[in-house]
Amino acid sequence: MKKEKTAKLKIIPLGGLEQIGMNITAFEYEDSIIVVDCGLSFPEDDMYGIDLVIPDVTYLKDNIDRVKGFFITHGHEDHIGAIPYVLKEVNVPIYATRLTNGIIEHKLKEHNLLTKVKRKVVKYGQHINLGCFRVEFIRTNHSIQDAAALAIYSPAGTVIHTGDFKVDYTPVFGDAIDLQRLGEIGKKGVLALMCDSTNAERPGFTMSEKTVGRRFDEIFADHKNSRIIIATFASNVDRVQQIINTAYKYGRKVVVEGRSMVNIIGIASELGCISIPDNTLIDIEELKNYPDEQTVLITTGSQGEAMAALSRMAGSMHRKVTIKPNDTIVLSSNPIPGNEKAVSKIINELSMKGANVIFQDAHVSGHACREEIKLIYSLVRPRYAVPVHGEYRHLIAQAKLAGELGIDKKNIFILSSGDVLELSDEGAAVTGRVQVGDVMVDGLGVGDVGNIVLRDRQHLAEDGIIIVVLTLQGGSGQVLAGPDIVSRGFVYVRGSESLMEEAKRLLDDRMRYCEDKGITDWGRIKAEIKDSLGDFVWKETKRRPMIMPIIMEV
Amino acid sequence: MKKEKTAKLKIIPLGGLEQIGMNITAFEYEDSIIVVDCGLSFPEDDMYGIDLVIPDVTYLKDNIDRVKGFFITHGHEDHIGAIPYVLKEVNVPIYATRLTNGIIEHKLKEHNLLTKVKRKVVKYGQHINLGCFRVEFIRTNHSIQDAAALAIYSPAGTVIHTGDFKVDYTPVFGDAIDLQRLGEIGKKGVLALMCDSTNAERPGFTMSEKTVGRRFDEIFADHKNSRIIIATFASNVDRVQQIINTAYKYGRKVVVEGRSMVNIIGIASELGCISIPDNTLIDIEELKNYPDEQTVLITTGSQGEAMAALSRMAGSMHRKVTIKPNDTIVLSSNPIPGNEKAVSKIINELSMKGANVIFQDAHVSGHACREEIKLIYSLVRPRYAVPVHGEYRHLIAQAKLAGELGIDKKNIFILSSGDVLELSDEGAAVTGRVQVGDVMVDGLGVGDVGNIVLRDRQHLAEDGIIIVVLTLQGGSGQVLAGPDIVSRGFVYVRGSESLMEEAKRLLDDRMRYCEDKGITDWGRIKAEIKDSLGDFVWKETKRRPMIMPIIMEV
Repeated sequence: MKKEKTAKLKIIPLGGLEQIGMNITAFEYEDSIIVVDCGLSFPEDDMYGIDLVIPDVTYLKDNIDRVKGFFITHGHEDHIGAIPYVLKEVNVPIYATRLTNGIIEHKLKEHNLLTKVKRKVVKYGQHINLGCFRVEFIRTNHSIQDAAALAIYSPAGTVIHTGDFKVDYTPVFGDAIDLQRLGEIGKKGVLALMCDSTNAERPGFTMSEKTVGRRFDEIFADHKNSRIIIATFASNVDRVQQIINTAYKYGRKVVVEGRSMVNIIGIASELGCISIPDNTLIDIEELKNYPDEQTVLITTGSQGEAMAALSRMAGSMHRKVTIKPNDTIVLSSNPIPGNEKAVSKIINELSMKGANVIFQDAHVSGHACREEIKLIYSLVRPRYAVPVHGEYRHLIAQAKLAGELGIDKKNIFILSSGDVLELSDEGAAVTGRVQVGDVMVDGLGVGDVGNIVLRDRQHLAEDGIIIVVLTLQGGSGQVLAGPDIVSRGFVYVRGSESLMEEAKRLLDDRMRYCEDKGITDWGRIKAEIKDSLGDFVWKETKRRPMIMPIIMEV
Repeated sequence: MKKEKTAKLKIIPLGGLEQIGMNITAFEYEDSIIVVDCGLSFPEDDMYGIDLVIPDVTYLKDNIDRVKGFFITHGHEDHIGAIPYVLKEVNVPIYATRLTNGIIEHKLKEHNLLTKVKRKVVKYGQHINLGCFRVEFIRTNHSIQDAAALAIYSPAGTVIHTGDFKVDYTPVFGDAIDLQRLGEIGKKGVLALMCDSTNAERPGFTMSEKTVGRRFDEIFADHKNSRIIIATFASNVDRVQQIINTAYKYGRKVVVEGRSMVNIIGIASELGCISIPDNTLIDIEELKNYPDEQTVLITTGSQGEAMAALSRMAGSMHRKVTIKPNDTIVLSSNPIPGNEKAVSKIINELSMKGANVIFQDAHVSGHACREEIKLIYSLVRPRYAVPVHGEYRHLIAQAKLAGELGIDKKNIFILSSGDVLELSDEGAAVTGRVQVGDVMVDGLGVGDVGNIVLRDRQHLAEDGIIIVVLTLQGGSGQVLAGPDIVSRGFVYVRGSESLMEEAKRLLDDRMRYCEDKGITDWGRIKAEIKDSLGDFVWKETKRRPMIMPIIMEV
């Protein structure tokens, strides 16, 4: 009897490659599609006016009948942020661990979608059967609690997706990453490993979260006579737990400040993810009732975000907290690439107010370094390696490392967004592409701002705009009023006569020329204005403002 | 006989505090003013369209009769870049060492100022007498050749200004920093030390430039079968020298690419600051005549600058060099704060083309770390410490370090731009302020772009513009045409009807209202349009485009 051709497992990344990128990956086998994560990304510097970027999920919408559910590895924005947008259109159940689900629910509530999207809380070790797939949640460690790796079982084989992770043998809350289970699954045979690449360039091991707790203890011991303000990531509940523990030990009251910090601590408290001793938390309004050296503020803004609490304090714009010369301020974070200048600005501003700013050694990464990545490869021993999460340079670094660990170069795949990787026991190859892309969110608009609008914004930002208005007589085309010139974001001051007066004379000339030649076609008149004014302005100023002729007819 | 009151030495920083900032400092004693350095700074991220920023030197212009000359410590842009702009208005002689002068001359030539500005080349150890001042040039080491510290002798005492420096015991070219002379002057008594703070947060010693040469040797030995492309700072002639030496040793031909690289190497060759073996340099056009493994390209763009040669290669936009999968590309640099993302983008793009990118360990800093700063303080033993060059956080770090070295806290001054520090043997204090500020250069315009234009550009960038045009009958104020609505950088797509049609109806209503009420005042009509349209657009889109009503009259 002839063996039937094996159906293949398809892996299709639908998001970007950015480090803090849109993590969203479809897994497809015959009539079943499941999706891992559903993240957003933050706009690039030249995406003026854009609030956030979400993935184009046309592929999922086109195959809506086959999409069974979303599996979320952890509660960071680049893994959950697009849920309110995507699930509105691809409404299938979401599977996530406890805290992850808590954060997702809070997000859905804000978008009035809580009753519309089905959710299921999953425990580590639990298996979910959906269509051709079975998915197991495996405990990992990360800079947020309840992070999970996924074992995705399909008829074509097993894929391990690590999510974002590190190996923390001594985590603050819960247990260490389930290395035994990864080894056990590995022993049975794993088709592909999709492993976090963020720190694949960094040698060694990432330190345990507990080392930060010890550093806090030092800082509190060294600064017994001053108020302490600690900025960190709101979602790092373990970090906050350690600050609270240290504050309690040193007899300090704790204030939690910053919207996202208050939200997450609220969610974590409800779920029992954080334990706060009685009489430790106080309201920010009560701060004045305690001497400085008996208080600690935990705040957002460790990335220099302009509107976050720490920035407002540094810029003397916080309504309730004024930085004092004796304050000790700790940045318990590292700048995410791109935020270095904003963080430095805050350090400068706080220093100018006389505060003592500590910004080194009070943070550890949430991502696995090279030795940890090697450990996971050695436990899982996959046939194929598909590095994920990181910029291209990081994916390449993991790919090289996988090669060093003995994985055949032709079995290592660095995928681009939209690539369709087909895998089976018999081989693997990128066999096609699906539609993907950035959908920009600006205010209430989702996807209405495209490249033309962005290019216009860039042009306006760079050189401003000159508007030329003109009223013509209907029929004759005779100039009744104008051309008048108005500008914004463009100015040029020169000698005794303004450039604009000369430009006005030039345009008057061109209009007389058009009248003389009997040119009444608006397109030609506008082109005439654009060309002559553009050339003139460039010659005089070496600037290229947008030139916008507007013609009215009476 | 009663002793006369001692005249005081004034130190007045006229530039910014930024790390790559406008270094320019006036020294004043009675009727004499001398100026140290004359740098520019690069625009902040929100200074849209600005090419560069130069200092407001109103104070020097107002005191032009007393200004005797400029002393330049070295040839980096943040120390010389504003010379063509400032010297046009404050035309006094410039004193600088050989390479520094060569780079200044090139800059003056580009601005057609070579015959208009007097220059004098100074040797290390030479003393210049100007008015009440005597200035001695002292050899230092830095990431550019011919860097100098200045000993500024005044009747009130001696000030040592280090310029930017490091201690390199084994420099590539010339001798190590003249520690003996600093000690000798220190022994005689120094009133104030103005010392480079850039690396004041970093422990230890900055490595010698020669260590980079040894790293190049390793890289060349490890990559004998591929083309090597090395990007570095054009002005680091010693770095280029070491690349050329290594290329020569390994029998490779060298191509120099990128405008500023070609310029500086040209100047350095003419002055004998670099020695290039015969038959080593080839033209970029000859590259095709040699096998890849016998060539090296030295190029600009190590900071990810969008228009520099390396960026153009990475983006497949370079007309003469195509990156190949076997290329070895070395970034011999560290990202300057703020450039991290741009550098990472280049690494990603080059990696995607299959090139092997080396971006670690092939660079050393040009600035002194903490141990070197301590060494200088210990040789100079100043009465007053005035940390310079660095962000506020770095100045504070040096101030703390100076305190640890025994300098009285009240004798340490962190100055802001415009502060007047008065110093004498009897005491020191900030006694006043002078006018300072950023002058923005945009195209041919110097200082014409101010905060209003910048704010408009930011508004346009963020939300775009909606223009409403309207033609009214003179006298009656009756609407003859419009209101017509045009937008740029703003768009909103919603349901079946466009937002703009609804906005048009709204404005028609408002115009009828104005007509009915007999409102003909243009100011009131414009306010009516702005308010009603602004409210409507915010409600519908949560965006706030600039709204610009334009009224014409026939």
